[in-house]
Amino acid sequence: MNSKTATAVAHPNIAFIKYWGNHNQELRIPSNGSISMNLGALFTRTSVTFDESLQTDQLTLQGESNTGPALQRVSGFLDIVRKTSSLDSFARVESQNNFPMGTGIASSASAFAALSLAASVAAGLDLEEKDLSRLARRGSGSACRSVPGGFVEWAKGSTDVDSYAISFASPEHWDLADCVAIVSQAHKATGSNEGHRIANTSPLQAMRIEQIPSHLKRCRDAILQRDFEVFAEITEHDCNMMHAVMMTSNPSLIYWLPPTLAIMQAVREWRKSGIPVCYTIDAGPNVHVICEAAYQENIVSLLNEIPGVERVMRSGPGGPARPI
Amino acid sequence: MNSKTATAVAHPNIAFIKYWGNHNQELRIPSNGSISMNLGALFTRTSVTFDESLQTDQLTLQGESNTGPALQRVSGFLDIVRKTSSLDSFARVESQNNFPMGTGIASSASAFAALSLAASVAAGLDLEEKDLSRLARRGSGSACRSVPGGFVEWAKGSTDVDSYAISFASPEHWDLADCVAIVSQAHKATGSNEGHRIANTSPLQAMRIEQIPSHLKRCRDAILQRDFEVFAEITEHDCNMMHAVMMTSNPSLIYWLPPTLAIMQAVREWRKSGIPVCYTIDAGPNVHVICEAAYQENIVSLLNEIPGVERVMRSGPGGPARPI
Repeated sequence: MNSKTATAVAHPNIAFIKYWGNHNQELRIPSNGSISMNLGALFTRTSVTFDESLQTDQLTLQGESNTGPALQRVSGFLDIVRKTSSLDSFARVESQNNFPMGTGIASSASAFAALSLAASVAAGLDLEEKDLSRLARRGSGSACRSVPGGFVEWAKGSTDVDSYAISFASPEHWDLADCVAIVSQAHKATGSNEGHRIANTSPLQAMRIEQIPSHLKRCRDAILQRDFEVFAEITEHDCNMMHAVMMTSNPSLIYWLPPTLAIMQAVREWRKSGIPVCYTIDAGPNVHVICEAAYQENIVSLLNEIPGVERVMRSGPGGPARPI
Repeated sequence: MNSKTATAVAHPNIAFIKYWGNHNQELRIPSNGSISMNLGALFTRTSVTFDESLQTDQLTLQGESNTGPALQRVSGFLDIVRKTSSLDSFARVESQNNFPMGTGIASSASAFAALSLAASVAAGLDLEEKDLSRLARRGSGSACRSVPGGFVEWAKGSTDVDSYAISFASPEHWDLADCVAIVSQAHKATGSNEGHRIANTSPLQAMRIEQIPSHLKRCRDAILQRDFEVFAEITEHDCNMMHAVMMTSNPSLIYWLPPTLAIMQAVREWRKSGIPVCYTIDAGPNVHVICEAAYQENIVSLLNEIPGVERVMRSGPGGPARPI
């Protein structure tokens, strides 16, 4: 047989304690640990076939053949898999998201988690979860958090060996909903890779990093105890800390747009009125509005009334990356 | 003669390197030095009459008698003047701004600068500029910067004696314009006094304070050399640093509204296109858009096109507080 094939699915994730800045840029060893929740309603499905007859790696994204930077990044990643498995044939990669690209849902996390699993199985590797998480990290830092299921912590570690993510609560542990308010589908001017690279140019980054261990503990405990009040306070504070670093880095990155701020202010008002809801924002203008699942219909209606909100996607907690 | 009277005018100022947080809350010794420009088109005119026949201090603001917290604050301030001059009669204070209240122009700076001068002259004190600046500081921190003229630096000092502001360039030195885009006239939820008090609850304030001496030097040099590019870069960076502290303090203060962000983003685009313009924002949602005066017509038109901008006020550099 001259082809080896496998298919896997993985979910994107939303970070409550954010990843921003690398200790080692090439290996994507982060400057700080992070905590996230997988988004079960959204997924990437990826098939990998190593085929000795291929003259080069091939990539199909959402049904379209890709020969640009995306193929280059995937090919570089497959080199790591080939090296580990002593395989030397090229591969055909087909990847499909069930959510639109460029909507502020980081597709690189689910994409590289699914690719890690599909490629390693196709290559005949039988990796345990932590090694799969380590591998996914090499493709995209936050992808390592999409390998385990539910509520996940990425211990920063200090080398390729000890920097990976583990689950600390199952998807069923806490019925949260992420209502993602899309305010712009435009491609962001400064991508995450470049952003991580300049994080240290902010005079505030060092202090942010110093605070993170206490943020991790506070957030982890709040999730384990399902204490929404503490969860909301630390999640928003950590988000504000990251954006404080972004806007004071060189060059200054301000990812927010006017509706971003309208949503942030509205969420604070809703919480004051007694609704268990808070916001978090990645490196983009869209707002992840997190609430207890029972309130999601209410929150989605409220969000749709805010000028500038184009659409709202939603998801509960999701499971680990898995073969299908 | 049983009445002593004097009248003075003073301008508000806009800070390019911001004052946020106190080393000594009661004496208003700031945590950091600051740099500002007086706004010549705007002023407060204040008359003070010490009158032995009065049974209490009296305050008239914009033609209306005031018996609330404003009178209390003025009366407490007059106590300092009475103590210094060994005067013991009450005073009638009449104060008028030529700009509307609650428009994001801090009227407390011009108000206490004018009051300091009028009250000290009426009380027979002949204070030199630095002592007048020290006195104004006791009423409102930033008022000490409205005592000298033009471009002003407030050296933080460490005691009541050495914390005052001096002019380092005349109003004629550089023809800048401040185009103030008013996006909300609502009273802010958290005033500056409370804000200064909680500045240290942000984990980022210490690092901000550490950076300020280099900000002061960079801003002062840029003004002296009329180097708009450096001036714009340091002014926006310092503004972003202060708001980074505000949004990460406890409670978190987010003063921006959606149009605030629209203006910030627009100003950056205009500067990229070659217009010498930058933004700075105090503890409120309105945006001070600073440009070389030759561009102000253009900037005002552009600002008026941004949704959410209610009106634009403008001013060039102004002189010192003075008796009339």
